[in-house]
Amino acid sequence: MSIAVIYGGTREEGNTEWLTEQVIKGLSVEKIYLKEFEILPIKDERHSESGFQEVFDDYNTILDKVLKHEILIFATPVYWYSMSGTMKLFIDRWSQSLRDKNYPNFRADLAKKKAFVIVVGGDNPSIKALPLIQQFKYIFDYFGMSFEGYLIGKASKPGEIHHDKKAIAAAIQMREELKEQVKFNQ
Amino acid sequence: MSIAVIYGGTREEGNTEWLTEQVIKGLSVEKIYLKEFEILPIKDERHSESGFQEVFDDYNTILDKVLKHEILIFATPVYWYSMSGTMKLFIDRWSQSLRDKNYPNFRADLAKKKAFVIVVGGDNPSIKALPLIQQFKYIFDYFGMSFEGYLIGKASKPGEIHHDKKAIAAAIQMREELKEQVKFNQ
Amino acid sequence: MSIAVIYGGTREEGNTEWLTEQVIKGLSVEKIYLKEFEILPIKDERHSESGFQEVFDDYNTILDKVLKHEILIFATPVYWYSMSGTMKLFIDRWSQSLRDKNYPNFRADLAKKKAFVIVVGGDNPSIKALPLIQQFKYIFDYFGMSFEGYLIGKASKPGEIHHDKKAIAAAIQMREELKEQVKFNQ
Amino acid sequence: MSIAVIYGGTREEGNTEWLTEQVIKGLSVEKIYLKEFEILPIKDERHSESGFQEVFDDYNTILDKVLKHEILIFATPVYWYSMSGTMKLFIDRWSQSLRDKNYPNFRADLAKKKAFVIVVGGDNPSIKALPLIQQFKYIFDYFGMSFEGYLIGKASKPGEIHHDKKAIAAAIQMREELKEQVKFNQ
Repeated sequence: MSIAVIYGGTREEGNTEWLTEQVIKGLSVEKIYLKEFEILPIKDERHSESGFQEVFDDYNTILDKVLKHEILIFATPVYWYSMSGTMKLFIDRWSQSLRDKNYPNFRADLAKKKAFVIVVGGDNPSIKALPLIQQFKYIFDYFGMSFEGYLIGKASKPGEIHHDKKAIAAAIQMREELKEQVKFNQ
Repeated sequence: MSIAVIYGGTREEGNTEWLTEQVIKGLSVEKIYLKEFEILPIKDERHSESGFQEVFDDYNTILDKVLKHEILIFATPVYWYSMSGTMKLFIDRWSQSLRDKNYPNFRADLAKKKAFVIVVGGDNPSIKALPLIQQFKYIFDYFGMSFEGYLIGKASKPGEIHHDKKAIAAAIQMREELKEQVKFNQ
Repeated sequence: MSIAVIYGGTREEGNTEWLTEQVIKGLSVEKIYLKEFEILPIKDERHSESGFQEVFDDYNTILDKVLKHEILIFATPVYWYSMSGTMKLFIDRWSQSLRDKNYPNFRADLAKKKAFVIVVGGDNPSIKALPLIQQFKYIFDYFGMSFEGYLIGKASKPGEIHHDKKAIAAAIQMREELKEQVKFNQ
Repeated sequence: MSIAVIYGGTREEGNTEWLTEQVIKGLSVEKIYLKEFEILPIKDERHSESGFQEVFDDYNTILDKVLKHEILIFATPVYWYSMSGTMKLFIDRWSQSLRDKNYPNFRADLAKKKAFVIVVGGDNPSIKALPLIQQFKYIFDYFGMSFEGYLIGKASKPGEIHHDKKAIAAAIQMREELKEQVKFNQ
């Protein structure tokens, strides 16, 4: 089992990235920073005669990276009580991939993934990020992906996450789980 | 009181737009179609020394349109159990406006607005869109905006919303409320 | 198809009952007022050697009434952002019925029911009663019951519900749905 | 600062109790087992002329125990995606205490409390117990109580909680927080 981390943050070395580092320390992961790519907003052409038109951006490049791995960690700062717009752009495009002849097994491929979610927010995230967690649950359910666990950190200013002992303890716990998953499935 | 509708959809004359039309029929509104504008993802520079850098896109043009009105209707299809990425890009940038010297009263200005939300989704939205409604609530609370009401429609294929009698009845009800608001505040 | 209304309220002719009356007007229903019965708290004996012990109260009497009908309307005031304790006592005991030899088909029987939920609360119920709606969804999902719709009214003092035009419009809409269900399945 | 644990469970030495023990180990607490008391369902008499009538059960005895402490830990198994009916009966009666002349400062007294929540459920509680957590949040907000943290364990059969490493790690973390609170406020 190999691991991809999909980062939705837009800051260098932000709190979300730091907390995620506590989770993946010692593990081999491919890190995908969405902010380094261009992802255009989906244009809903599900119902137009000619279907979805090809989009010329980096979306498929990212998707190919993601699909190589069995474990996906979605790591995003909480922007306005939700995932970052950058990550939302990425996920919105899944509607297109579901109808893309170049990805005939997209849904089945995602069904085999194991998903983890790591979010960090500044405004009472242990409560106010719960709708976001529920949304990830619905997304994963849609594909039949297994939602293995989530982690909510509290931080706003750079470095503040270092003081969230609760989140750090939970991160270490998540790391143990990941190690077992990787070992078990080698 | 004047009304702006902020459309997050990406399809021409989609279900969300149709349902919203039932709400605003006979009312004078400014319609803002986010898909017609370029909105770049926020780059979180809240904590960088030089602060947020000027972004050259249409965001401020849209914001200026929005801020002219006292009643804001956020109308978005449900994409992956959340608002469309296009609408999320717009709202994410509010973090920048909160620190923009050209909008010194941004927070206070929004505090005076009355907000309505109209969403249409295909996958059991009366339950699965509730996290999205809760997120709007948190967003409005942050600014002290009054959340006047929401409306959830069920539709996927073009025109399907015509059959959602429950949503149409609620739309007519919302229209009555809007009329009273407009009248009362003239 | 016949209809049972299961009332969780503890006040005579309360707001919840009035709103429910708008829904069932003209329909033949059996009204079950939980407050008129004695329901003891469940004692969790799922894992004790001898299993659940017989309880001497009115629970089975109520259950027998409920099981006769195909459409169940759960009507409860919102007490502390949840169903009334009285209604919770009734539902908690379902864990016992699931293991009761006198109800060998309890789960399968409930799976065939269609469920509606009507709640009335005083403290911003259109947002703060949503967790309760979600809980009903989970309960119905557990049994495979179909969750046909919910209705949230806003009222606190006696009679206040008369002014909730939105809820009344939705009640009339729910009545139409019920009529179709009853007609369709005769 | 002294601590009360309010147990909503109905089984001897259940999973919830065991997990809570991990939290309170080494701390001085008063344990209140609601199942040992008789608590009658509230009768909503807020709006009747003569107000709430005196109820002859153990509710006030429990309340007096609770009010002596500054830190309250609500520990309940998840029954049907919510707190146990037993705990709900207790909390429902708060509506009466709010209007009880013998507790003239009930609301202000609760406002000073710090609240923790520990729940254990069998059916995907890390997602399906979130509405319950949100409801506790609303309850605490109503009184202005500080919601210090929550802990969700996964277990159904007796002893199963011993295997929930994630919950145990979080319990130890919560214990550290409690210790700091107690020390800091002596």
